[in-house]
Amino acid sequence: MSDVLELARELIARPSVTPDDAGCQALLAARLQRAGFACEHLRFGEVDNLWATHGSGAPVLVLLGHTDVVPPGPREAWSSDPFAPEIRNGVLYGRGAADMKGSVAAFAVAAERFVAAHPEHPGTLAILLTSDEEGDAIDGVRRVADLFRERGQRIDWCITGEPSSTARLGDLLRVGRRGSLSGTLTVKGVQGHVAYPHKARNPIHQAAPALAELVGQVWDGGYESFPPTSLQISNIHAGTGANNVIPGELQVLFNLRYNPHWNAPALEAEIAALLDRHGLEYELRWHRSGEPFYTPEGRLRAVAREVLGQFAGEPPEESTGGGTSDARFIAPLGAQCIEIGPVNASIHQVDEHVSVADLEALPALYGRLVERLLLL
Amino acid sequence: MSDVLELARELIARPSVTPDDAGCQALLAARLQRAGFACEHLRFGEVDNLWATHGSGAPVLVLLGHTDVVPPGPREAWSSDPFAPEIRNGVLYGRGAADMKGSVAAFAVAAERFVAAHPEHPGTLAILLTSDEEGDAIDGVRRVADLFRERGQRIDWCITGEPSSTARLGDLLRVGRRGSLSGTLTVKGVQGHVAYPHKARNPIHQAAPALAELVGQVWDGGYESFPPTSLQISNIHAGTGANNVIPGELQVLFNLRYNPHWNAPALEAEIAALLDRHGLEYELRWHRSGEPFYTPEGRLRAVAREVLGQFAGEPPEESTGGGTSDARFIAPLGAQCIEIGPVNASIHQVDEHVSVADLEALPALYGRLVERLLLL
Repeated sequence: MSDVLELARELIARPSVTPDDAGCQALLAARLQRAGFACEHLRFGEVDNLWATHGSGAPVLVLLGHTDVVPPGPREAWSSDPFAPEIRNGVLYGRGAADMKGSVAAFAVAAERFVAAHPEHPGTLAILLTSDEEGDAIDGVRRVADLFRERGQRIDWCITGEPSSTARLGDLLRVGRRGSLSGTLTVKGVQGHVAYPHKARNPIHQAAPALAELVGQVWDGGYESFPPTSLQISNIHAGTGANNVIPGELQVLFNLRYNPHWNAPALEAEIAALLDRHGLEYELRWHRSGEPFYTPEGRLRAVAREVLGQFAGEPPEESTGGGTSDARFIAPLGAQCIEIGPVNASIHQVDEHVSVADLEALPALYGRLVERLLLL
Repeated sequence: MSDVLELARELIARPSVTPDDAGCQALLAARLQRAGFACEHLRFGEVDNLWATHGSGAPVLVLLGHTDVVPPGPREAWSSDPFAPEIRNGVLYGRGAADMKGSVAAFAVAAERFVAAHPEHPGTLAILLTSDEEGDAIDGVRRVADLFRERGQRIDWCITGEPSSTARLGDLLRVGRRGSLSGTLTVKGVQGHVAYPHKARNPIHQAAPALAELVGQVWDGGYESFPPTSLQISNIHAGTGANNVIPGELQVLFNLRYNPHWNAPALEAEIAALLDRHGLEYELRWHRSGEPFYTPEGRLRAVAREVLGQFAGEPPEESTGGGTSDARFIAPLGAQCIEIGPVNASIHQVDEHVSVADLEALPALYGRLVERLLLL
């Protein structure tokens, strides 16, 4: 069994449901230390973070990942135990196989090989791991980035191992992510009986024209390779079931995925102004999940495009789609960020898996990127 | 203790939570039979109905009431047991005291006195009681009215004993009620992830402009003494809590209270046309609770106005406000319908009550109405 496959299996066997690391980082740190890395354990609250470095000075290349996984759901929905990795027909099954214990194992193996081959390499090769990517993302890379800011820790390039490939390994290069901003809107009315509407104020009726305008808004026409900014109402609730009661309150949850045309404060102001124009009595709470990041054309993208093209047979799609990742916390430090990882078709689902061939190709893929970036 | 007070207490002591009659109608039928009434028990499904008549032929005057009550809620919220009638400071407390076991007791006492004094009165005096007014209203007066239609049972006048008075007994004469129509609208979309809105179809977004138009619609400017027709959305629900999922469905419950400008089919067609104009994919289920009824100026209103004026000291307000009542099923038989009953401030609440003085005045009030209508 190959080194990366064995390590991926050892990681999957640790049930590190977010934010529990379940010993994954200790296992990885032990290996990396043996290979010559300096390992710093940064525990914030319930969250384990590992900062492992080799070499010193610029340029600083970070391989960014997480050891936590999303909950597996009911065991009986899986074909095999989600925390007992199993290979069937050349495919490794288990929670985290694709998102992203496979990538993390490949990071470690690639790093070991690189420093063994180039013990005196220029610059710094670092691995940053958290156990809070799938959860609140508060005490994970967000806190580590704050610490780096205090320390003046500079990062030039960051490669996140998120499963970005769509059909086959290396077919997609993530060069940015949209920002994500969530709002919880409570529109206040006055409860009453439907037979006496003049004694009540229906918050659904008050809100309807404002919501119609909100969902009809065109925010922008896209930005570079980003899709247009989009607002989606995910939840709307008012009323307790009775059909003769005018409810006293309406609650609306919505989420914006936005490109670098916008930032969170500008969106918040725009939406508050819209609600004010409609004369609503409301409360609005915001949750800023992360500003967008974007890595324009440059050395990192050029190298990644070339390396992925060698592995996949043709140049990758360069995309800014998808959800958010921890790169959103590293990019504001001034780092160029990209994301490269295995096929994401099964992530967050039952029977999550990665093909053994892809997993075994990953250390070479990451290793080639490290070589091309650090060995100038 | 007066006859009506004793009877009201006996009725309140029977815990006839809708649709359970709990023996109330048997008690009343026994008394009415002793007084010379012919009693017919009409049981449909779980519902008891009593049709008691004295005399024959036209004119037919019906006193309409119900023996069921709404649930009392938690016992500890009440100052005394809701089914153990108690008099404190000249007020009778208990579930149904005002809605409407007090009126029903007064019907019986007034009817006994009237037929004792006028055994050969012209026309027919009838009492119609159901145990399904507070519930589904399917197997109660609705079914009895169907039977009357089959039998060709004519009704000239109907006095419902619903608690209509607002500040003191007899200050309000109900001469009509709005119709009530409920709709359950399900707007179909396509579920998806908020990060990929182009792969989903958000039913909240689809529905928003249609709902804004629906709640902004002016249906009419009122009708005679009816307020304008009003639509109220009572419930709106979509989403399961997660803020990253575009829901697949939106459910909207709404209710219309409408005056005789409209009928249910016309409203249903108008609303379906509005939804169709917005290109929604939807399902719409209707529940017709009752068409409006209205008793224009005529003998019944004139007599009632005069009698109430004598009791209250000044002519009553003549109103078409409030919810619905079983009169909606009797009016379509061609009957003129009015509603007269005690003060309604405490109905459907804890510590429901009626003043003993009002309760003891009610048999004379109903009795005077019966005399003025039947003794031509």
